[in-house]
Amino acid sequence: MKLAIDAMGGDNAPEAIVKGAVMAAEERKDLEITLVGDEAQIKPFLKDLPNISVLHTTERITGEDEPVRAVRRKKNASMVLTAKEVKEGRADGCISAGNTGALMSAGLFVVGRMEGVDRPALSPTLPTQDGKGFLMLDVGANVDAKPEHLLQYAVIGSIYAEQVRNIKQPRVGLLNVGTEDGKGSDLTKKAFELMKDAPINFIGNVESRDLLDGVADVVVTDGFTGNVALKTIEGTALTMFSMIKETFMNSFKTKLAAGLVKNDLRGLKDKLDYSEYGGAGLFGLAAPVIKAHGSSNDRAVYNAIRQACQMVELNVTSTISTTLKDIKAKEEQE
Amino acid sequence: MKLAIDAMGGDNAPEAIVKGAVMAAEERKDLEITLVGDEAQIKPFLKDLPNISVLHTTERITGEDEPVRAVRRKKNASMVLTAKEVKEGRADGCISAGNTGALMSAGLFVVGRMEGVDRPALSPTLPTQDGKGFLMLDVGANVDAKPEHLLQYAVIGSIYAEQVRNIKQPRVGLLNVGTEDGKGSDLTKKAFELMKDAPINFIGNVESRDLLDGVADVVVTDGFTGNVALKTIEGTALTMFSMIKETFMNSFKTKLAAGLVKNDLRGLKDKLDYSEYGGAGLFGLAAPVIKAHGSSNDRAVYNAIRQACQMVELNVTSTISTTLKDIKAKEEQE
Repeated sequence: MKLAIDAMGGDNAPEAIVKGAVMAAEERKDLEITLVGDEAQIKPFLKDLPNISVLHTTERITGEDEPVRAVRRKKNASMVLTAKEVKEGRADGCISAGNTGALMSAGLFVVGRMEGVDRPALSPTLPTQDGKGFLMLDVGANVDAKPEHLLQYAVIGSIYAEQVRNIKQPRVGLLNVGTEDGKGSDLTKKAFELMKDAPINFIGNVESRDLLDGVADVVVTDGFTGNVALKTIEGTALTMFSMIKETFMNSFKTKLAAGLVKNDLRGLKDKLDYSEYGGAGLFGLAAPVIKAHGSSNDRAVYNAIRQACQMVELNVTSTISTTLKDIKAKEEQE
Repeated sequence: MKLAIDAMGGDNAPEAIVKGAVMAAEERKDLEITLVGDEAQIKPFLKDLPNISVLHTTERITGEDEPVRAVRRKKNASMVLTAKEVKEGRADGCISAGNTGALMSAGLFVVGRMEGVDRPALSPTLPTQDGKGFLMLDVGANVDAKPEHLLQYAVIGSIYAEQVRNIKQPRVGLLNVGTEDGKGSDLTKKAFELMKDAPINFIGNVESRDLLDGVADVVVTDGFTGNVALKTIEGTALTMFSMIKETFMNSFKTKLAAGLVKNDLRGLKDKLDYSEYGGAGLFGLAAPVIKAHGSSNDRAVYNAIRQACQMVELNVTSTISTTLKDIKAKEEQE
């Protein structure tokens, strides 16, 4: 199995990327990794392993680059060359912790769509209180989704949750403004009807206030709403941590308390840290493309690599494609 | 000034509603309140005041009722009669802590729309870290919004923030998936162009991760996205409180710490409690209609009454209507 990894993307690149890759390569001898980026910057963190090679380039896409333009113009950027390894068959999948929008563009324009999928979806696994986590898709690849897109996300998410996350008959919910059938916008009402008949364990509408309680294993939504929900969770959690920190500075008494619970609260923060669940899949492309979190450390990169390996080994891409083609064929028959 | 109040709506009705009304009536002799509901249940909490009267009815709309049907069929429900007091000129505005959807229907079908507004918006004031709060609209009255609706929300929110919340030149932001101009869905891209030219202090796109940091005084969004964002804030905050509570039960050390910070953490919870900011306005109706939070205590009801009084006194409804008509007239000229 071969993976291409953008060594230059993310806040801690190339160090965290290279170290994460080394961890994975040392563990799995059957895995061949191509690190794409500036050799001079990569080398200091690299070990001499037979299954890691470097594809040298100095060009890179930054967080400030306009995604579509960057992918089109910076033809030798590490991220673009990473995607090209997949496109040209030298890798089975790829990973980047860089500019999310640019990776979506590189996925779409370089790797290309999977047959049967109209629009790819960005799909992180988010934390729940019980530690199991849930998959949410789409969180921003496609901000003007149609009902058929949501149906496809539901099928994709269900297959991924079952095969890669080992959840039997994953509960698939549609993010909506109420839990009753018939609730919602034109989009969600129509998507509901389609999802009802799909070969998935559809549990109906779910509300965003129940997400972190694990109300569903797969939460389906359009890219606009999903992006807002994701960033609201992040923002609310960060604000609360900062308010708690402030609260602990109130008095001598609270400072004393802070000393006593510091470690336990750090554990709480880790529990809410979704880099532990691997990267966000860019589903619906011709091969596995994983967006590792921008702030990924070596452990998170290692987790993203494991995730990509599982997707390749279990042939998730082809299962999704076959299932979606079956659904389309059935529709046309009816 | 006259207000009609649904005494039977909300988790703590009628006690909290009646007590809140008594607080307000005792403070303001120029305020006349009509409490609508079951006299036998209201009386035990009522004081003999010259400026509170009871309009008796035993019918009521519950939280489980389907909103539109309930308002149409339960013609003598306390909420419907409350709205009728406004419609027929016996009250200048009204308040209910009951079924949100039903109050939106009663507002629309009984009180009626304001001239110049296509769709009313539900607009709570949400907490921010600095305690100032921000107005978000719409959070669910209109789940399939058009760009012109968002423009109207922006104007309505700006006028309300300036007049009732005393914020000079309130910063109006458009909730979006990125802060750069040109980002977003078809809806937000078009709304952006309209808002740019409106007579408001438009600060451009804002992201949901910055909401609780007070990135804007007024946050404009469609009812679907706003509803999801609101419930995500609520859900994330509740989950975190419950996780913190769990963390404090970890060991003897953490239990000791819990005792030391208990009061301070309760203060934090209060800070995030948006009933302190009054109820959610149902803006765009012919008169002020306020949705008090379902779990409102007497203090929250009192706050909602003050809010309704301010809206009546400052003539907010007519300012909004005039401003929107001016904008429409200008558009037609161009």
